[in-house]
Amino acid sequence: MDEVTGAQLIAESLKAQKVDYMFGIVGVPIIEVAMAAQAAGIRYVGMRNEQAVEACRLYSKFSARPSSLEAIPSVIEKAVRTSIYGRPGACYVDIAGDMVNAKVERSKVSCCPPPPVSLADQGSVTEAISVLKAAKTPLVIIGKGAAYGRAEAVLRELIEMSGLPFLPTPMGKGVLPDDHANCVAAARSRALLQADVILLFGARLNWMLHFGLSPRFNPNVKIIQVDLCAEEMGNNMRPAVALLGDISAVATQLLLCVRRDGWKYPSNAEWWSTLKSKIAANAKISKALALQSTVPLNYYTVFHHISQLLPHDCIIVSEGANTMDIGRTMLNNYLPRHRLDAGTFGTMGVGLGFAIAAAAVEASQNTGRRVVCVEGDSAFGFSGMEVETMCRYSLPVVVIVVNNNGIYSGVDSETWKAMKQMGELTSVAPPVSLLPDARYDEVMKAFGGRGLLVRTVEELRSALQLSLSDWERPSLINVLIDPSSDRKQQEFPWLTRSNL
Amino acid sequence: MDEVTGAQLIAESLKAQKVDYMFGIVGVPIIEVAMAAQAAGIRYVGMRNEQAVEACRLYSKFSARPSSLEAIPSVIEKAVRTSIYGRPGACYVDIAGDMVNAKVERSKVSCCPPPPVSLADQGSVTEAISVLKAAKTPLVIIGKGAAYGRAEAVLRELIEMSGLPFLPTPMGKGVLPDDHANCVAAARSRALLQADVILLFGARLNWMLHFGLSPRFNPNVKIIQVDLCAEEMGNNMRPAVALLGDISAVATQLLLCVRRDGWKYPSNAEWWSTLKSKIAANAKISKALALQSTVPLNYYTVFHHISQLLPHDCIIVSEGANTMDIGRTMLNNYLPRHRLDAGTFGTMGVGLGFAIAAAAVEASQNTGRRVVCVEGDSAFGFSGMEVETMCRYSLPVVVIVVNNNGIYSGVDSETWKAMKQMGELTSVAPPVSLLPDARYDEVMKAFGGRGLLVRTVEELRSALQLSLSDWERPSLINVLIDPSSDRKQQEFPWLTRSNL
Amino acid sequence: MDEVTGAQLIAESLKAQKVDYMFGIVGVPIIEVAMAAQAAGIRYVGMRNEQAVEACRLYSKFSARPSSLEAIPSVIEKAVRTSIYGRPGACYVDIAGDMVNAKVERSKVSCCPPPPVSLADQGSVTEAISVLKAAKTPLVIIGKGAAYGRAEAVLRELIEMSGLPFLPTPMGKGVLPDDHANCVAAARSRALLQADVILLFGARLNWMLHFGLSPRFNPNVKIIQVDLCAEEMGNNMRPAVALLGDISAVATQLLLCVRRDGWKYPSNAEWWSTLKSKIAANAKISKALALQSTVPLNYYTVFHHISQLLPHDCIIVSEGANTMDIGRTMLNNYLPRHRLDAGTFGTMGVGLGFAIAAAAVEASQNTGRRVVCVEGDSAFGFSGMEVETMCRYSLPVVVIVVNNNGIYSGVDSETWKAMKQMGELTSVAPPVSLLPDARYDEVMKAFGGRGLLVRTVEELRSALQLSLSDWERPSLINVLIDPSSDRKQQEFPWLTRSNL
Amino acid sequence: MDEVTGAQLIAESLKAQKVDYMFGIVGVPIIEVAMAAQAAGIRYVGMRNEQAVEACRLYSKFSARPSSLEAIPSVIEKAVRTSIYGRPGACYVDIAGDMVNAKVERSKVSCCPPPPVSLADQGSVTEAISVLKAAKTPLVIIGKGAAYGRAEAVLRELIEMSGLPFLPTPMGKGVLPDDHANCVAAARSRALLQADVILLFGARLNWMLHFGLSPRFNPNVKIIQVDLCAEEMGNNMRPAVALLGDISAVATQLLLCVRRDGWKYPSNAEWWSTLKSKIAANAKISKALALQSTVPLNYYTVFHHISQLLPHDCIIVSEGANTMDIGRTMLNNYLPRHRLDAGTFGTMGVGLGFAIAAAAVEASQNTGRRVVCVEGDSAFGFSGMEVETMCRYSLPVVVIVVNNNGIYSGVDSETWKAMKQMGELTSVAPPVSLLPDARYDEVMKAFGGRGLLVRTVEELRSALQLSLSDWERPSLINVLIDPSSDRKQQEFPWLTRSNL
Repeated sequence: MDEVTGAQLIAESLKAQKVDYMFGIVGVPIIEVAMAAQAAGIRYVGMRNEQAVEACRLYSKFSARPSSLEAIPSVIEKAVRTSIYGRPGACYVDIAGDMVNAKVERSKVSCCPPPPVSLADQGSVTEAISVLKAAKTPLVIIGKGAAYGRAEAVLRELIEMSGLPFLPTPMGKGVLPDDHANCVAAARSRALLQADVILLFGARLNWMLHFGLSPRFNPNVKIIQVDLCAEEMGNNMRPAVALLGDISAVATQLLLCVRRDGWKYPSNAEWWSTLKSKIAANAKISKALALQSTVPLNYYTVFHHISQLLPHDCIIVSEGANTMDIGRTMLNNYLPRHRLDAGTFGTMGVGLGFAIAAAAVEASQNTGRRVVCVEGDSAFGFSGMEVETMCRYSLPVVVIVVNNNGIYSGVDSETWKAMKQMGELTSVAPPVSLLPDARYDEVMKAFGGRGLLVRTVEELRSALQLSLSDWERPSLINVLIDPSSDRKQQEFPWLTRSNL
Repeated sequence: MDEVTGAQLIAESLKAQKVDYMFGIVGVPIIEVAMAAQAAGIRYVGMRNEQAVEACRLYSKFSARPSSLEAIPSVIEKAVRTSIYGRPGACYVDIAGDMVNAKVERSKVSCCPPPPVSLADQGSVTEAISVLKAAKTPLVIIGKGAAYGRAEAVLRELIEMSGLPFLPTPMGKGVLPDDHANCVAAARSRALLQADVILLFGARLNWMLHFGLSPRFNPNVKIIQVDLCAEEMGNNMRPAVALLGDISAVATQLLLCVRRDGWKYPSNAEWWSTLKSKIAANAKISKALALQSTVPLNYYTVFHHISQLLPHDCIIVSEGANTMDIGRTMLNNYLPRHRLDAGTFGTMGVGLGFAIAAAAVEASQNTGRRVVCVEGDSAFGFSGMEVETMCRYSLPVVVIVVNNNGIYSGVDSETWKAMKQMGELTSVAPPVSLLPDARYDEVMKAFGGRGLLVRTVEELRSALQLSLSDWERPSLINVLIDPSSDRKQQEFPWLTRSNL
Repeated sequence: MDEVTGAQLIAESLKAQKVDYMFGIVGVPIIEVAMAAQAAGIRYVGMRNEQAVEACRLYSKFSARPSSLEAIPSVIEKAVRTSIYGRPGACYVDIAGDMVNAKVERSKVSCCPPPPVSLADQGSVTEAISVLKAAKTPLVIIGKGAAYGRAEAVLRELIEMSGLPFLPTPMGKGVLPDDHANCVAAARSRALLQADVILLFGARLNWMLHFGLSPRFNPNVKIIQVDLCAEEMGNNMRPAVALLGDISAVATQLLLCVRRDGWKYPSNAEWWSTLKSKIAANAKISKALALQSTVPLNYYTVFHHISQLLPHDCIIVSEGANTMDIGRTMLNNYLPRHRLDAGTFGTMGVGLGFAIAAAAVEASQNTGRRVVCVEGDSAFGFSGMEVETMCRYSLPVVVIVVNNNGIYSGVDSETWKAMKQMGELTSVAPPVSLLPDARYDEVMKAFGGRGLLVRTVEELRSALQLSLSDWERPSLINVLIDPSSDRKQQEFPWLTRSNL
Repeated sequence: MDEVTGAQLIAESLKAQKVDYMFGIVGVPIIEVAMAAQAAGIRYVGMRNEQAVEACRLYSKFSARPSSLEAIPSVIEKAVRTSIYGRPGACYVDIAGDMVNAKVERSKVSCCPPPPVSLADQGSVTEAISVLKAAKTPLVIIGKGAAYGRAEAVLRELIEMSGLPFLPTPMGKGVLPDDHANCVAAARSRALLQADVILLFGARLNWMLHFGLSPRFNPNVKIIQVDLCAEEMGNNMRPAVALLGDISAVATQLLLCVRRDGWKYPSNAEWWSTLKSKIAANAKISKALALQSTVPLNYYTVFHHISQLLPHDCIIVSEGANTMDIGRTMLNNYLPRHRLDAGTFGTMGVGLGFAIAAAAVEASQNTGRRVVCVEGDSAFGFSGMEVETMCRYSLPVVVIVVNNNGIYSGVDSETWKAMKQMGELTSVAPPVSLLPDARYDEVMKAFGGRGLLVRTVEELRSALQLSLSDWERPSLINVLIDPSSDRKQQEFPWLTRSNL
């Protein structure tokens, strides 16, 4: 009889499902599982804190508590399978502590196959095409589902063959490059407002897309919704056509129609002129802001220069309020699944964890890709101690803290000192203020990483170049910006704050 | 301004979603909603009890509590839509009591469109066909999903063109008629045990199908799984081919291949001989049991005669232990969605409610179809007072209580009296015993329905004929059977009890 | 080694905690537990239905799921102990099905001792006495906690020595007899409204006491709250004095003060005149209603005659809307813990179960006490099939169904027929209507019990006398009353309906 | 009409309940509440992260979600009241975001009175005294409940008058000074093992007291349990006598008996000799360890010197594994409620938050008391960023990180470098290792606090003296100890790890 401990069985079951990395917090009895995982060839990354474990269970797609050791391999198979079949999502397996050291006969469930693929019915595809052809001001929105569904090649061909303008959602950025000629992200509000037909690939009309509602959307807009989840169809907006199926497969169905018909949206349409002039106007405003180099710097200048220096294949992780909102518009993605936008999760403090996970994978696979983590100073505080984890494993993450001394806005050192004279700070300091000029860079240095404080464009550029050139250890660039810096005026103030 | 109360808004929102019937228990503040529903043209059926309201919420596919009156129409639309899109399931909307009488401007969300349809990818379809062609002992299983997906026409063509044997699950009964030449239900155990390829249409390999496991299944069986729910793929058994999509659409894809190839499983295959001889052998045993007419009767005789008299288009509702298990094999269904098998819900006491709902619909649509509700005596006790509801609304349901004086088995009157001498019944009576010869028929009579007590074949036949001929009021036929009557010997005792 | 099955261990653990009765629904694997319970000397009563099992867990004071067989005795001890220590309440123990037949070494935890007793601090007692002495219009309210705390003897002495008027809550009825000279229940609204000091013994100022709020209470009323649960102090109303401790013990502390001081509230106080004249006035109105004997009868006449015939030591169970509200005022209790008022649970359908439980206990202990269950017709429908349980175990419960053809109000047969002409009943029948003149008495007869239909005073009296004289079997008296009968006019319509 | 916003109403309701401090994380819409709190005179401390919000709700004694703005004052009153009445515990009030800016008429519920007090019944007190008098080897255990119940004065008198040995639980430390002549903490295991009667004041026999079970306890030990929570009586161990009531009040009852009888446990009893010689022996071992000054230091040396320098009135917060376990035995408390032992909560990461809260209160009240926070290095990582909060508000907390490079145990720099050569650290590094010699002191310096790295006794002493002398800003002393340092051998290895 081939006996193993529960810990070994867990580790081997995960390995059988092709899980190559484990992230965790160590305590008894996790130590045994972590060690068994390493023995089974899984890399283990020990974190300093993990948030909201109970929350995991509540928001999981599937959760289970194996009733016996024997059930562990199949429960783990089901959890992994469920997490990737249909709409992807977290699964939660809760294993009783006393199982870890108990003995059981070794057993294994082989790795679950890739998810099954389905297509839209041909009638609906034909209908979608005719709605699209009839559009005066069409728009394609590329969402997270297109990224997960690895639809980049077919969508590029579809966009280029059809000549349609497109817009990525935050997690859809990079499915097509942000600098693609058909990308109208720089005229986002205008595009959403005036589109008469929107072709939605794996994007949800949630708060990030203003629920598809007026005044942000044309009240008569027709939606062609492409999604692999039936229950998602019609949420918030009734689609004119619902195409249920795998995003790549459905995009291919649409592409075949377009190719067969030789149809193309005219590049000289007035809609293109409108969009292009709006893009140009916006670019001008952003450029004006970005070229200001008065110290302290503003957000736009900071992101402009970061954008210029980042390699096209880097993975961008971002979290914060203004930092994430503005960064999303200023930092281009050129490749799919190269962005982890923490904001869509609605939880602060996940950014550094995402960056560590990404860096651990890149490091072990020698991809030569950098992980850049752009954090607001408040967001950084949620899990800043994880820089020790980066240092411990020599993960060359570049952390950029865009530091405005607060949440939404802070105050400068002089004002802070003045407030201190006025009374106890717990009574007088604005709740949104953090300590002025906090040296987050020194926190990184405390663990042997590189820490850099920058105030000017020159300092920023050289710090970033230095950090990017170093593959041995992580860096943290603490960019002190104007505490009163804010987003440029938005056309619609409603729901522009994305992390509320 | 066009103002309505919350109750009216709820009623109108339901009507807008084409909800035509409401079932409920009355209490304040439900009265207002029920009356508003009637005013909006919804028929209201007041029940005597409802089970497990909290449970509803826990097991719902979607549950919501509108935060404002204004949100009610869209929450109701989402609940109705979610209940029919993807895998069908209950949804739960919890409306705060104080909303019912509050005033709000009238508003409406139009009825959600029918669910979107998706297809399997063609490569997998081709693969499925070649697995099927290579099978020596193939079997088709037709499940509830095929009934919900209205796949009856295409499945009949597929079965007949391919010449394959098939087996329905309890709720899949009637998608093809139970007396179809290719139906091998009467050799169910043998078919499951020896099949080398199983083509599964919208059926789950749950406990009712013994989880697809040995010793009930060939351990090397290949499964071709057709389902509209990705997360269902691979549950309990790894499929050889997974065809994700609408059951009708995928069956059509398979049919086109079969038709194009002109392929047919040979009717002279040894597999057919095996199945047919097993069917004949089983029929012989059942017939022997069914022809016994000693009083008290056994289950098989009872169901044999019921089966002969029921109209082919009647709706059969069934619940109980042996009553449901044996009834399922003895009472044929000839039409899809004409059977409500309470056992798959795992809850006793839903049968009469199902029957009332079905009868209310048939009555208001003048379909001329009967609803026949076959109950074990224990099951009947869970909600027997609902016969008052049948009488109140003059719903001509035929309730047949197969009465063995207990749960699984009871004792006869003589034994009961003897036990009474032995000590207090709470100390000596078997927990599975109910009162011998309880007159459930009198319960129906108490409310003006027809009640009939039968002990012999002749009484049973004439009672059933009488009941079926009366369209004015419900009947209850109380069939006293031998308390020690049981199922015939099963090949596999394991998990043959379906309602545990 | 002394091995037993899990079922035996459960049964023996319950018996060790002095559990003498078990009530349940039979299914696998409950059969084994029920049989083991009987073997351990526990009486088992099999019911036809049980409501809201999941709800049990949610509203339990303590719930646990033993992680091993070995833990069962101590988990059961803890559950029993927790249910009786502090504020009494249900506990929930969920035992995994596969434990029932597993083997384990026999073990036992001895029966938990009676709850510990605590007293109020003397300073607060003194303060309470002086608040009481200063009162012009004092009132004592005797609640459920006084009944549970077995405070009847000391409270009677306290009431009689102090000469204070008192009022019982529904479940506090009988702690002192309802016909006690100091009972002012017949002037309840007036007493609550004008009291300037209220001494609350184990009663909660919940909806049944109008939350202690104006306009039902004097806005300046001072509350002296006696309760054994600290967290209950100050709920809804801030007490002038909070006396935390066992109700009997604290009442004794108060009694000692009163006795020592020789203080007595003057029987010639104006407050007593006010209350007595109000009692007389109310009695006159009730009597006038009660003496009406026009057929169909009204509620007051029915309860008046029932009241006259019931033995003083009978146990009254009640549930319904008007039936429970009016019955509570008309049916006297003379002994503590002789009333089960289903309404305080807010759930319909528990009345028959309560009656069966009470009757099983009385029967096995040969107390010679009757159980009388007074049900509204709608309430009866929730679990009417339980009359079979009464018959099965020959429990001589007297069930009285006060039948008004509906919920709150019904219609008579003529009106019903007329409605039937108007259209389908599901469209036109008021949601509150039940079948007119339903023969609930026949339901009892169906199982061998006595069923009696009564319409007149004479029929009612003779039916009740007959039922009370029969100790061999249960009876059901179906009292057809005027469907439009209602409560007499209430001073405050607000929250007079107690079961909403 | 006097209108306020929801935020103001929340703030004023909290202030009315005498809430003087608010701790939180800022986000919209918390900003408004925080600002309103400051306006209402509540001090606001903005934290960097908060753990487990959902968990709060699950483990709360009471949780509510006000259904209207008007309900907020009374819900807050109930939450505050419930948190301090009966067994103290957290309460959770969840206020809908859209209430914060809505308008409502100002209203207030006055502050809830102090909790009501109850006493044990005199019979049980007498019984307890006779059990105590009959004891050969008695022991008093002083728990958290005694500290909450402010029983220090009466317990000191009781201990001194009765001459009994006592032992504090972690949170009971300081109710009597740890250096009291009757304290036998230094012979804890022996005292627990041999006591024949244990008098338990507000302490639970949970895992920290080994569930009161053999082999850690005498199997025949008699427990006298003093507790204010009835449901706590008999948990894990059946008490010989249960004294239900307020700890102070019951201790006074016992004291009165002892005083009246003039009873005293003889100071020359053999039990005292046994305990004293065990104390001396243990002291010798600890002293030997504590006097080792080889670098790197061990735990005992570190705590020995810290202990010598801490002011007697300082507040000690502690969290970690070995750090907390050993610190608990080595760092004396001299005053009640001056210790926050994070371990009893079972959650890491709360220590710095506790320290900030304590320091904010001391600062605003100018008590002149220091807050000292002793953290393991792993524990510090859970919320180390909160040192920014300390700096921001100039809270002079002294944080001591006892740094062994890991969880339970780490490795030194040399070993770490060697492992790095062996392969990727995620594959080879022990899961319990953290980065060697991490400079947590630099993290404090990053925000303007004092950071000190120490390796020797001299460095430790001077760093601690320097930190204690500075009232302007927080300090962090990073004490590098031997990564293989461990607890001295324990008599019972079972459950000596307190944070599992």
